[in-house]
Amino acid sequence: MTLAITGVYSASATPVNADLSPNLPAFAAQCRWLIDQGCHGVALLGTTGEANSLSSAQRRTILEAALGAGLSGDQLMPGTGVANIPETVELTRHALSVGVTRVVMLPPFYYKGVSDEGLFHAYARVIEAVGDDRLKVVLYHIPQMSGLPLGHDLIERLIAAFPGVVVGIKDSAGRIENMTAMLARFPGFSVLAGADPLLLPLMQAGGAGCITATSNLVAAQLRVVYDGARDPARAAQVAAAQARINAYRDLSNSYVQIPAIKAMIAHRTGDSGWCRTLPPLVGLSPGEYAALAEKIAHIQAGEIA
Amino acid sequence: MTLAITGVYSASATPVNADLSPNLPAFAAQCRWLIDQGCHGVALLGTTGEANSLSSAQRRTILEAALGAGLSGDQLMPGTGVANIPETVELTRHALSVGVTRVVMLPPFYYKGVSDEGLFHAYARVIEAVGDDRLKVVLYHIPQMSGLPLGHDLIERLIAAFPGVVVGIKDSAGRIENMTAMLARFPGFSVLAGADPLLLPLMQAGGAGCITATSNLVAAQLRVVYDGARDPARAAQVAAAQARINAYRDLSNSYVQIPAIKAMIAHRTGDSGWCRTLPPLVGLSPGEYAALAEKIAHIQAGEIA
Repeated sequence: MTLAITGVYSASATPVNADLSPNLPAFAAQCRWLIDQGCHGVALLGTTGEANSLSSAQRRTILEAALGAGLSGDQLMPGTGVANIPETVELTRHALSVGVTRVVMLPPFYYKGVSDEGLFHAYARVIEAVGDDRLKVVLYHIPQMSGLPLGHDLIERLIAAFPGVVVGIKDSAGRIENMTAMLARFPGFSVLAGADPLLLPLMQAGGAGCITATSNLVAAQLRVVYDGARDPARAAQVAAAQARINAYRDLSNSYVQIPAIKAMIAHRTGDSGWCRTLPPLVGLSPGEYAALAEKIAHIQAGEIA
Repeated sequence: MTLAITGVYSASATPVNADLSPNLPAFAAQCRWLIDQGCHGVALLGTTGEANSLSSAQRRTILEAALGAGLSGDQLMPGTGVANIPETVELTRHALSVGVTRVVMLPPFYYKGVSDEGLFHAYARVIEAVGDDRLKVVLYHIPQMSGLPLGHDLIERLIAAFPGVVVGIKDSAGRIENMTAMLARFPGFSVLAGADPLLLPLMQAGGAGCITATSNLVAAQLRVVYDGARDPARAAQVAAAQARINAYRDLSNSYVQIPAIKAMIAHRTGDSGWCRTLPPLVGLSPGEYAALAEKIAHIQAGEIA
């Protein structure tokens, strides 16, 4: 069965200016770098992109900047799910209006303890209000932030109600068992790993790819894993790439992850402005940044050795 | 020490039309009923008001409808905190622009595990960006929805940084010990109970009042408790009122609370449209509604007896 969405997508970070407005030229450069490194596309405006700390107007501007940077609509997969449905509809319609048909959609995430019935109607209302056959929705399972796990009965009901629209899921909960259970239950559904270390086992189990934060640093290695995961002849090369991905991921996770990812992009690009985060996240301190830079040097030395 | 904010405030529910747009005439009528029943004010657009399921444009319209219903700016205390800071600033500025100076403000609630440093900067940035000396902020502690408890060290830092602006807190976590600890540590700070059963003990401990959902049904009784809490001569009357409040609250909490509150308003007003909720919440089924009506009759019979 052909999957609607496959590949390595970057959960791209969002650089900001000193006044905390989006730094559009730096963002455009990052998008081009990600594609040059081998990403199939950029899943902008997600958790790593601090999208829920941006206004709707800023989100639209950022999506347009990615298109302005030369990426095609098919290379972009923005997050459009906010806490309220009217603005989720508006953001999704905006994406379609600029030729971007694939979106990653959080459930409305303020209320907790919500029933499957309520989550079904929330997604259904958005899809029906958008009312565009081109739309392809990737559900977003990230209970550690949303507080709302997306269970398999709910997913089954959404796929049945909106075939060809609800086409995949980004699973950021970090459990391979949940992903493989979805692969078994939903043939043709694109299961995308939100956690880098799971890309290899997920691809070997028939998964669709990944949308991860570490891609901002090691996109080329993610592509090696993606391309070689099912080829025994490339096992050594793939294992080495996955090990390097995991080293960067472990390093970012030894801090608060998103500020660390941004600091690592600052280190790579030489643009210290990348260290800025949007409240409520806090950027790394100069001391933390210096220690991080030393640890990056260690990882890089290991690569050469 | 004089408290900046005192009284019984209703966490008013938001009626919606069949197309899920706000029903402004029904909302205006509810606001007038709440004031007629003795509420000092209406804390609209909070959790009970399903504000985070409304767009920014809808929120502004609803605040203006309350003013249009004849309530004064001093009688209104809207929620203006959304997940992102630019729109929190816009909503707060809008309130000030229409003469409403007191707001209840959630912390930015998408990211979890955020540091006190991050929460401080989030609130500070909003207050500084609004830049209006008239502003009075009631912090909103509701960790069961926001995922972000507001600790006492954070509150102390905010009060010190913004004296006369950060003037109170709505505590919806339901623990009287947390409220009395704040009363002891922050003299002159308005501690408002978010849970009806705690109004009496909180007032007796020196609290400022309440912002509660059951006020949509028993505002007059809340006023009785508020006015008589510190008067031994009125102890019996106050206890009876608190018992009736608790009966309504226990009933609403035996369902999902917000849909039950709305169904109970539908029962009181005879307007079944009040039963509608916004996704992801689900309104009571006809069977649940019938059972609820019977239980209300039981409570009312108890009152007469």
